[in-house]
Amino acid sequence: MPDLNVVRLITRKRDGGALAPDEIEALVAAYTAGDVPDYQMAAFLMAAFLRGLSDDETVALTRAMLHSGVVLDLSDIDGVKVDKHSTGGVGDKVSLVLAPLVAACGVPVPMISGRGLGHTGGTLDKLEAIPGFDVGLDIPRYREVLADVGAVLIGQTGEIAPADKALYALRDVTGTVESIPLIAASILSKKLAEGIDALVLDVKVGRGAFMKDEARARQLAETLVRVGIGFGTPTVALLTHMDTPLGRAIGNGPETAEAVRILKEQTPAGGPCADVVEVTLALAGEMLWLGEAAEDAGAGRRLAAAALRDGWAFGVLQEIVQAQGGDVAALDDPDALMGEPVATVTADAAGFVTDLDPLALGYAAVDLGAGRARKEDDVDPKAGFVLHKTLGEPVRTGDVLAQIYASDPDRADPDAVRAAFTIGHAAPSRRPLVIDRFDGERWEGQESGE
Amino acid sequence: MPDLNVVRLITRKRDGGALAPDEIEALVAAYTAGDVPDYQMAAFLMAAFLRGLSDDETVALTRAMLHSGVVLDLSDIDGVKVDKHSTGGVGDKVSLVLAPLVAACGVPVPMISGRGLGHTGGTLDKLEAIPGFDVGLDIPRYREVLADVGAVLIGQTGEIAPADKALYALRDVTGTVESIPLIAASILSKKLAEGIDALVLDVKVGRGAFMKDEARARQLAETLVRVGIGFGTPTVALLTHMDTPLGRAIGNGPETAEAVRILKEQTPAGGPCADVVEVTLALAGEMLWLGEAAEDAGAGRRLAAAALRDGWAFGVLQEIVQAQGGDVAALDDPDALMGEPVATVTADAAGFVTDLDPLALGYAAVDLGAGRARKEDDVDPKAGFVLHKTLGEPVRTGDVLAQIYASDPDRADPDAVRAAFTIGHAAPSRRPLVIDRFDGERWEGQESGE
Repeated sequence: MPDLNVVRLITRKRDGGALAPDEIEALVAAYTAGDVPDYQMAAFLMAAFLRGLSDDETVALTRAMLHSGVVLDLSDIDGVKVDKHSTGGVGDKVSLVLAPLVAACGVPVPMISGRGLGHTGGTLDKLEAIPGFDVGLDIPRYREVLADVGAVLIGQTGEIAPADKALYALRDVTGTVESIPLIAASILSKKLAEGIDALVLDVKVGRGAFMKDEARARQLAETLVRVGIGFGTPTVALLTHMDTPLGRAIGNGPETAEAVRILKEQTPAGGPCADVVEVTLALAGEMLWLGEAAEDAGAGRRLAAAALRDGWAFGVLQEIVQAQGGDVAALDDPDALMGEPVATVTADAAGFVTDLDPLALGYAAVDLGAGRARKEDDVDPKAGFVLHKTLGEPVRTGDVLAQIYASDPDRADPDAVRAAFTIGHAAPSRRPLVIDRFDGERWEGQESGE
Repeated sequence: MPDLNVVRLITRKRDGGALAPDEIEALVAAYTAGDVPDYQMAAFLMAAFLRGLSDDETVALTRAMLHSGVVLDLSDIDGVKVDKHSTGGVGDKVSLVLAPLVAACGVPVPMISGRGLGHTGGTLDKLEAIPGFDVGLDIPRYREVLADVGAVLIGQTGEIAPADKALYALRDVTGTVESIPLIAASILSKKLAEGIDALVLDVKVGRGAFMKDEARARQLAETLVRVGIGFGTPTVALLTHMDTPLGRAIGNGPETAEAVRILKEQTPAGGPCADVVEVTLALAGEMLWLGEAAEDAGAGRRLAAAALRDGWAFGVLQEIVQAQGGDVAALDDPDALMGEPVATVTADAAGFVTDLDPLALGYAAVDLGAGRARKEDDVDPKAGFVLHKTLGEPVRTGDVLAQIYASDPDRADPDAVRAAFTIGHAAPSRRPLVIDRFDGERWEGQESGE
């Protein structure tokens, strides 16, 4: 493509036309090389946001971003490598439980994760709550840990999909983030660069998720799965609720402590975490099926449940922490990861927790130091909340609703945490967290399938 | 507006919402000050392109661009100052005839014009075909010439609407040029900065114009007039055909020679130019009415026709050229402005000129050196064409269709000029050039009014 006429590509997309795969690939390559300026790419992104991209265009964009950097080849490591990606939610520490659990069942999990931004946390920040844990392994060491331990968790290096990094930064400041094809290409370009053979997606929907609307969440799931399959990578998506926080811990240290306790004893501080276990086992079932360790997702789920119950998965977590330079002894006393509570939030009425607002808690956690208002901010690993009462549980006046943890007690705002709770007279009905499943052909749920 | 959240403004426009006037003004002010980067403005422009801007938003955008620079106050100069703006066409030398003509009738014309880009020429380039003519007068001298002579023609200085200059350059490279509100704001911000009291617009429609489609040309005319009136400036638009070149000359020297001949003797080289005179008198009638020199546009037109016939207007042209440093003697022999023809294009069939393609001639003129492929290119003042046969005229085999003028004979391409002519058997029917007139309330033409 010697004569790349960027204005012509922008105007064609602007007018609702389609770009050929080689045009999209040339555009991204030229942008990554610095030959197309940010302002032209910004205009293209806004045109793509408003006019949409076809699956073919999304595949081409994903391919261009994927091949802007190193694409790992893990074929010399035994097994079908499977990863999971979540679109993010409040209290979502599933990766920390899931990676060792699936590895314990014999399926290798090469996982490259992100940091928290906005009201949701990031797996890397949670891992770094374990003293010494190194999320910055280089590629040779990443391969070594995966081969030896069966799972490895690192951050996106500069070598992986640099075009995605540049495009994401541009989208963030040009109002072009919430586009389904752009989101799908961003997620898949990073995941496919990891060297995986199959992928499971946890597409969250609800007021605590990026996708508030179920129809749009389903569209995102469909696009992700179709584009993943378009690359020859078996891909399945679960659609899961994010209307209340997942689990009882919010914030890096608290969430890591909760994940460790789930793996170790299935009884985290504050009470049981059936919801985290429910989502984790559903995802693990899919991964074990795709990873050829189970004949279907149901069998995979049963295998994972056994691995969790019998403590094999905790053993793999210890090996991961050891291999990535972390303090294995810290896993013996997970509560130490968050220190002592600095404030307690109590109930001023009796009844049931009828609602628990994840966005209010997510933003309160950011204010406390658990998250980032800007990319360059540091996080406080100890900061966060443990919910002693969660959705549907009975409450008496004066009961502890939550405890607040932080390195800086002055940042604690018990009123903000209390405001996230609604106490009412009748217990709300429970509903399953996994709403539906898309395998590229159809949605499993009959009544809500599209 | 201390907390300008640019991403929030972009996303609101992206989602089809409206911006408040102070938000638009703050955005443009921050962009002009360098506090908002090009990539954010590019995303905003694309969102505005695809979602549109209301009249209120367009007024605010115009005001912000207008007040980014000097806004002239000509109230100390007697008379109602009126200018004309054309959206541009091939062979459109109307300004050169119109400005002295209207001034000759007693209405001051302060005119700030542009250079040619693309297939259409620019008034400044045409004026510079007159040896010594200075289009770069400073503001004090601009006022002086206007007060003394009654008309002045200069280029946009860096002091006038710098935000428009920056935004236009950005639109040009981001596929956001052809937006009616953005075009309207760009035109009006420059024109209103001139210090005018009223404005007449020549909105051209047809394959030789920027607006190919009549419905869109009408929308542009309506937006321009409503926004102009929104500023308290009486504004009228004429919708005129641009399906064939205007007049017989195309290119800077040839067009200036033609304009001079029209003012001097109404018989330019190649034959009469009834079309140029028709458009010029229609616009002059509106200007003289708005300038309070005639009780309506019809009376204004009659007054202008008399001024043209009696030579008063040519006298004013001589005064303008004298005042702006040009060689007045050059007006005595207008043909010298284009030199000798370097090639002749003859007919290879007999019949009538049934079609004459303005775009083909416009681009052939650019190739000859009369226009610019890029902003920084120089133009050849002598380069261009004189059409000896124009639409509807009878042709015998071997007749001269056109002559080519250029400083560099090697750039002449007679075949390209011949290809613009279609010779057929029956003379096409004539139609009036002025299609309709919009005064802010309604279109005058009953059958085509909206």
